[in-house]
Amino acid sequence: MNTNRHHLKAKFTGKVGDMPGTLTFPDDALKPKIVVYSYNADEVQSSSGSDIEVILKQFKKCPKHTHWIKINGIGDAQLIEKIGELLNINVLVLEDIANTHQRPKFDEYDGYVFATSRIIEFDDKHEITSSQFAAIVKDDIIITFEENYEKRFDVVVTRLKAGKGAIRTAGPGYMCYALMDTIIDQYFVVLADIGEALDTLEDRLYEKADKSIMYDSQHLKRALIMMRRVSWPERDKINDMIRSESALITPEVKTYLRDAYDHCIHIMDVTDSYKEITTSVMDLYLSMVSNRMNEIMKVLTIISVIFMPLTFIAGIYGMNFQRQDDKGHVIPDNMPELYMHHAYPVCVAIMILIAGVQLWYFTKKGWFSKL
Amino acid sequence: MNTNRHHLKAKFTGKVGDMPGTLTFPDDALKPKIVVYSYNADEVQSSSGSDIEVILKQFKKCPKHTHWIKINGIGDAQLIEKIGELLNINVLVLEDIANTHQRPKFDEYDGYVFATSRIIEFDDKHEITSSQFAAIVKDDIIITFEENYEKRFDVVVTRLKAGKGAIRTAGPGYMCYALMDTIIDQYFVVLADIGEALDTLEDRLYEKADKSIMYDSQHLKRALIMMRRVSWPERDKINDMIRSESALITPEVKTYLRDAYDHCIHIMDVTDSYKEITTSVMDLYLSMVSNRMNEIMKVLTIISVIFMPLTFIAGIYGMNFQRQDDKGHVIPDNMPELYMHHAYPVCVAIMILIAGVQLWYFTKKGWFSKL
Amino acid sequence: MNTNRHHLKAKFTGKVGDMPGTLTFPDDALKPKIVVYSYNADEVQSSSGSDIEVILKQFKKCPKHTHWIKINGIGDAQLIEKIGELLNINVLVLEDIANTHQRPKFDEYDGYVFATSRIIEFDDKHEITSSQFAAIVKDDIIITFEENYEKRFDVVVTRLKAGKGAIRTAGPGYMCYALMDTIIDQYFVVLADIGEALDTLEDRLYEKADKSIMYDSQHLKRALIMMRRVSWPERDKINDMIRSESALITPEVKTYLRDAYDHCIHIMDVTDSYKEITTSVMDLYLSMVSNRMNEIMKVLTIISVIFMPLTFIAGIYGMNFQRQDDKGHVIPDNMPELYMHHAYPVCVAIMILIAGVQLWYFTKKGWFSKL
Amino acid sequence: MNTNRHHLKAKFTGKVGDMPGTLTFPDDALKPKIVVYSYNADEVQSSSGSDIEVILKQFKKCPKHTHWIKINGIGDAQLIEKIGELLNINVLVLEDIANTHQRPKFDEYDGYVFATSRIIEFDDKHEITSSQFAAIVKDDIIITFEENYEKRFDVVVTRLKAGKGAIRTAGPGYMCYALMDTIIDQYFVVLADIGEALDTLEDRLYEKADKSIMYDSQHLKRALIMMRRVSWPERDKINDMIRSESALITPEVKTYLRDAYDHCIHIMDVTDSYKEITTSVMDLYLSMVSNRMNEIMKVLTIISVIFMPLTFIAGIYGMNFQRQDDKGHVIPDNMPELYMHHAYPVCVAIMILIAGVQLWYFTKKGWFSKL
Amino acid sequence: MNTNRHHLKAKFTGKVGDMPGTLTFPDDALKPKIVVYSYNADEVQSSSGSDIEVILKQFKKCPKHTHWIKINGIGDAQLIEKIGELLNINVLVLEDIANTHQRPKFDEYDGYVFATSRIIEFDDKHEITSSQFAAIVKDDIIITFEENYEKRFDVVVTRLKAGKGAIRTAGPGYMCYALMDTIIDQYFVVLADIGEALDTLEDRLYEKADKSIMYDSQHLKRALIMMRRVSWPERDKINDMIRSESALITPEVKTYLRDAYDHCIHIMDVTDSYKEITTSVMDLYLSMVSNRMNEIMKVLTIISVIFMPLTFIAGIYGMNFQRQDDKGHVIPDNMPELYMHHAYPVCVAIMILIAGVQLWYFTKKGWFSKL
Repeated sequence: MNTNRHHLKAKFTGKVGDMPGTLTFPDDALKPKIVVYSYNADEVQSSSGSDIEVILKQFKKCPKHTHWIKINGIGDAQLIEKIGELLNINVLVLEDIANTHQRPKFDEYDGYVFATSRIIEFDDKHEITSSQFAAIVKDDIIITFEENYEKRFDVVVTRLKAGKGAIRTAGPGYMCYALMDTIIDQYFVVLADIGEALDTLEDRLYEKADKSIMYDSQHLKRALIMMRRVSWPERDKINDMIRSESALITPEVKTYLRDAYDHCIHIMDVTDSYKEITTSVMDLYLSMVSNRMNEIMKVLTIISVIFMPLTFIAGIYGMNFQRQDDKGHVIPDNMPELYMHHAYPVCVAIMILIAGVQLWYFTKKGWFSKL
Repeated sequence: MNTNRHHLKAKFTGKVGDMPGTLTFPDDALKPKIVVYSYNADEVQSSSGSDIEVILKQFKKCPKHTHWIKINGIGDAQLIEKIGELLNINVLVLEDIANTHQRPKFDEYDGYVFATSRIIEFDDKHEITSSQFAAIVKDDIIITFEENYEKRFDVVVTRLKAGKGAIRTAGPGYMCYALMDTIIDQYFVVLADIGEALDTLEDRLYEKADKSIMYDSQHLKRALIMMRRVSWPERDKINDMIRSESALITPEVKTYLRDAYDHCIHIMDVTDSYKEITTSVMDLYLSMVSNRMNEIMKVLTIISVIFMPLTFIAGIYGMNFQRQDDKGHVIPDNMPELYMHHAYPVCVAIMILIAGVQLWYFTKKGWFSKL
Repeated sequence: MNTNRHHLKAKFTGKVGDMPGTLTFPDDALKPKIVVYSYNADEVQSSSGSDIEVILKQFKKCPKHTHWIKINGIGDAQLIEKIGELLNINVLVLEDIANTHQRPKFDEYDGYVFATSRIIEFDDKHEITSSQFAAIVKDDIIITFEENYEKRFDVVVTRLKAGKGAIRTAGPGYMCYALMDTIIDQYFVVLADIGEALDTLEDRLYEKADKSIMYDSQHLKRALIMMRRVSWPERDKINDMIRSESALITPEVKTYLRDAYDHCIHIMDVTDSYKEITTSVMDLYLSMVSNRMNEIMKVLTIISVIFMPLTFIAGIYGMNFQRQDDKGHVIPDNMPELYMHHAYPVCVAIMILIAGVQLWYFTKKGWFSKL
Repeated sequence: MNTNRHHLKAKFTGKVGDMPGTLTFPDDALKPKIVVYSYNADEVQSSSGSDIEVILKQFKKCPKHTHWIKINGIGDAQLIEKIGELLNINVLVLEDIANTHQRPKFDEYDGYVFATSRIIEFDDKHEITSSQFAAIVKDDIIITFEENYEKRFDVVVTRLKAGKGAIRTAGPGYMCYALMDTIIDQYFVVLADIGEALDTLEDRLYEKADKSIMYDSQHLKRALIMMRRVSWPERDKINDMIRSESALITPEVKTYLRDAYDHCIHIMDVTDSYKEITTSVMDLYLSMVSNRMNEIMKVLTIISVIFMPLTFIAGIYGMNFQRQDDKGHVIPDNMPELYMHHAYPVCVAIMILIAGVQLWYFTKKGWFSKL
Repeated sequence: MNTNRHHLKAKFTGKVGDMPGTLTFPDDALKPKIVVYSYNADEVQSSSGSDIEVILKQFKKCPKHTHWIKINGIGDAQLIEKIGELLNINVLVLEDIANTHQRPKFDEYDGYVFATSRIIEFDDKHEITSSQFAAIVKDDIIITFEENYEKRFDVVVTRLKAGKGAIRTAGPGYMCYALMDTIIDQYFVVLADIGEALDTLEDRLYEKADKSIMYDSQHLKRALIMMRRVSWPERDKINDMIRSESALITPEVKTYLRDAYDHCIHIMDVTDSYKEITTSVMDLYLSMVSNRMNEIMKVLTIISVIFMPLTFIAGIYGMNFQRQDDKGHVIPDNMPELYMHHAYPVCVAIMILIAGVQLWYFTKKGWFSKL
């Protein structure tokens, strides 16, 4: 049994009737760590810190570079607001960054675009946990916000530093795509894990079915429900990006986004089949329980049907009807069998005959073959 | 068991064939309380009362302000009709205000727009109750109708008086949005409550499953059905507002409405997952009932299979076949075992052997492990 | 049990391969009764009869009025054909009037429009029966056909005579709307009845569940299937009317139709939730049956597990192993317990102990608490 | 049980990788019978034969007539190819005529159109069988292909000869519609048969439920699955025809097609409701099986609970604890009840009391009322 | 039981965060075998090899022919990259060729188009396995990639060499269609196999139902889930091709593609019906298990209800209440029946009567007829 499952209680930061644009962060938000990567076709410069100064310095130092401002941890309202002022970002966007239980979405504003994704993880307990990734793309700048300090984008940083491919030259829109693609790749990893768990479950079904199968199926089903809830709006978001008319999403980036779109559809297809297979596993398990019950009942019935009549016969001849009355006169008809010659072996033979006939009947009806 | 559940009987105020536009109020409609807030960027003035005079006075007093006429309780047909005349409102709109079991909707008329929402509450019995919110927006005026005196918009009033943000300057369309957003925020609160109830239910499933789980699941499912019935048309309504070409819904307000639209979609997503999880909980409970039955039957079968043959053997040797006939002659073959030396311990040993073989067989078949 | 349920056999009047436009009436079609209402803003004149003469006379008498020709009963092919000729109506339309098992629809023809609705009734046996309403609107004329003599439109006649509202002045399109609206209002009444039946059913589920619940749920479900089958195309039809470009459906009428459209959607929403709730009731009932079975089995198992070993022990000491052989010599080891001092109370004590241990075990396992 | 059911094995004539346009006929295709009807507003001439000559002759004889070439049986590849050459038909069309397991479809080609329908039959075993109808319409010619010699279009021939209505004058497009309409009319007949079978099934459910209900429901469900599989693409096809811009489908014919379209939708509606009702019947039957099981178990449990304790008590007093030891000394406490006065009637009275208390308890718990 | 089933673990070649366009092949990719067919209306020349030289030579040798470069096995990154350079193919396309777990898709690029299909196989164990087919069409060249060496396109090669039909003259777009059509034809073969397996399953259901039916149904269901997952995107892909504006997909090819599109829809229709029928089979099997249980329980109950009272009566008269006390005095009322004349036959007669009454009762209640 799993008592550590992911609790449902919808995390709703912010209060009813709050002004739209009010920044209410989750209570456990981490302190931001900022790294700024400034790059062009020739070089990558980076510096890190924890306040807005590091961004301003880097802007001054590399005025003609593309800047990727990577922020891990969103627990500093002032920083977010200062960034908002610096780049003239709508307060609704800042609110969406702070409220980490958003649906993936893509919004266009004057001169910049905003997108969020959900980063998912599949832990040992077959629980999916998710955190928010948010990105603002404006001019030559992309600012990304992650909820925690996980190093999931190290591969992108490596590629950026290696300088191969379009990553250095295709602008901040491409960087936005590259990061989202990394997140979607992670979905495949989670799906592979779920697929493996489902394989294990099916093996157990055929080898040693016990009731934990039901719990584990429900668990996987829940993970798949979550998976679908994440991948469906992700697809919508990428579609919105493809159809966007913003100059920040260049045709080249759109070509790549179409690829990511196909990946999302593929993820949804696989998620749906897995859900159907999980349902199948549960149905199969329940039919096994029914069959098991049938077999148990057959054992009980066979044993009862055989021994009840025999016990009754033994009971008959265990009755104490008296041969003689108080005066020693024989009472007529009172269990003369008990005084017959060979009566006992005949009685036992009759019992064996009865049992034999019943066994033959059950065999004929196929009760001993498996239903 | 819950005998206080929300009754279904569709509340249909009005009679078959009534002229469209006939004002038929619910029997228990409350007497209206009117508060008029007149505001501009600089100040907020308010006055309250219970008839149309308070509105007229306020109009005269603040001719250049934006007016929010907040009416709690709709049980005064004359008032509604007078307001209708004053602002030249179509009788169908007035009918929709009176008929409090409307689907959320948005209608555009010449010079004004009309929208309704459903305000929901989730009480201690896990029942969702809903009441109607209606708003007419015309020129610089917004008139809102609530069915009861709940102070759910106090936060908006506070924000209005505080004067921060767009609320003072963005016109009555923004006010309409702000109120609807407050209503939608409430949906999240209800969803969080349902999520928590579902968590509790799952905990009980793993810890101490009893048949109240089935009742409670059904209860939650019903709440979620209701939730969906409310959020789906809410989304449609907001979409209609976004696509509206009325000048009363300014582009700025539309930006905010898009945010509300995303919230609605999010609510529907979560509602759907919760419904699937509720179904899972019920399936799991039913499989537990089946398993439980299997275990009960196994206990019964094991005990029957062990004791029936033993009881039969005891019955055999309880038979009264006589050793001697009336004349004292030995009757041949009649239960010689009874006169054998050590026959009793041998018989008991055979019984123990039979029981032992059966226990070994059941163990081998795995009946003592849990299915 | 309900043996009076509505039979399914699709009523298909007409024969395979019949020429389109062949008028084949139901066998039990009633003889037509005609009433003609001629009205303008000032007055309403009416006359009634059973043949086309009454119509022609009225036309002559009130050449500038709007005419509502109300025909109850369609069992007169000649009359229908004459009306067809008089107003130059397509034979397909006449066929649709005759074939009373149509889907609601709206068709536009040159100079006139044709619409049908389904009138429904919910009888005491929780059966929905439906009949057809058909209307032709042309110039200043509306001709309506009902299958039976029910006075369901009396309220409209009353409104017409009272002369309030748009009914006198908004033309035959408005009259068509008013009649359809009355029909749709009836749907709400039926839904309210179904809702009430569903409430009763749920009460019975919690108070005294017996197997009639299953029958009654199926019954309601069937009524809801029927309800949906009627309301879905009704909505489509009204949508067609709203989008119609015919001059007969004026913008004013369209405003009202939008209201009717909302009503249809609302009916469909409610129907769907009721269907889900009906399914819930059945699921809950079936889980109650399962639980009940579990409880029955627990009783059986507890009683068997307690008494089988005890009966076996009694059987042991009921065996007749002899203390002495024929010659009176003591046979060794043959049931010495029977001759021990206090053996009987000890035996009974052991039995009580065994029963006690088992009861303690069952209590610990929670078999006496409800599952 | 039904062992004659329609086998599923998808009939796929043609081999993998065959050139598109290869004519591969079903093995059991019948030899063609050709009848040519040449008609105009004034007269109908017909001649029949089995090769292309009959067509050519008729063309020569009636150069200004409309020709309906009716071919029953498609088992002559040469004939089909010759017709293809004569009218210059694409080889894909000929392939579609030969492959009789097509989905209904409508294709437009240069100067001609091609459409197929599925003709269905519902036999005594509640099996739906289907065959293909194909029609090519070009200029003044319509060629129709049927798989067998069934006289299902005799009604159309009769109408053609009678010369009533549009059939003589509205061109080959109308003839195409008339034939399809006859096929769709047949769907209603099949639906009526299914509806009747479903009625019978429900009657049996309420009167004498046995397990054949399950088989028969599955059977009907399968027929409805087939029905839906046929009517869905039929609707699509007719929709394609309505939206076609080909001059062969005249506006007049489109009016009639809209009627056929409504019929298709109606068929799909009814099919869906019937499917839901069939599912209901199965659910109801299964709940009856569960209830029946409950009742059986109650009988078993009541009888066991009553007789087990009684049998145990009888067993107690059937034990042979001895009153006296070998030497005739009374052994203390060994079953003194057996020697008490009136012990036997007291014992029987106690037994009756126990049985009575249990019966009272079961009555109170409602076990004797139906669950 | 089937332990060889197709494992789910989503095969995801490539690593999270890899640069888009990175070629990561499956570990078990086969070494490529290349055959180049160069053809025009007059002749077909072919040569084969394993590196790019064979392609270059053939290009030089037949500069005006159409080239079909058929590559079986994709386990040579360099080869793929060289081909990419040679024809100037986007690296995303090359990545899609390498990643063999793609969804079928069609992408247009500058001057060339790219399409993938899934080739499926249905093995003896009722497992569907799939491999990827990829094709690039550019100018007069079509390059196709298959994962393994299966000779599934031999029929197309034969047709190409035979030179009949459009295959020689209609360009590389037609060749692309011809290959895809061959793949889709294979789907029909698989569906026919599944249909046959389903027929066999149904036969077994009616003849000899055992629990393997459940396993086999699940197996088929899974195959159908897979089938749908393949055919759905295949249809989308072909639709994309039909709507493509690329000059490489000529109108003539589009005519053929429409035919393939119809085939896909047909496959999806059949797949869906098969899934519904598979579900039916499982439902029917489960209802048979329930009925079987009912019959087992009836046997048990009948036997218990008959023998328990009889055994009890025998037990009564097996009690040892003594006729005489220690002193030989008669103890009043102690089992006088035992000393009555003819008591034993009366007792047996009563037993027979009881059994008879019960059998009559069970017969009347219909327990001996099948439920």
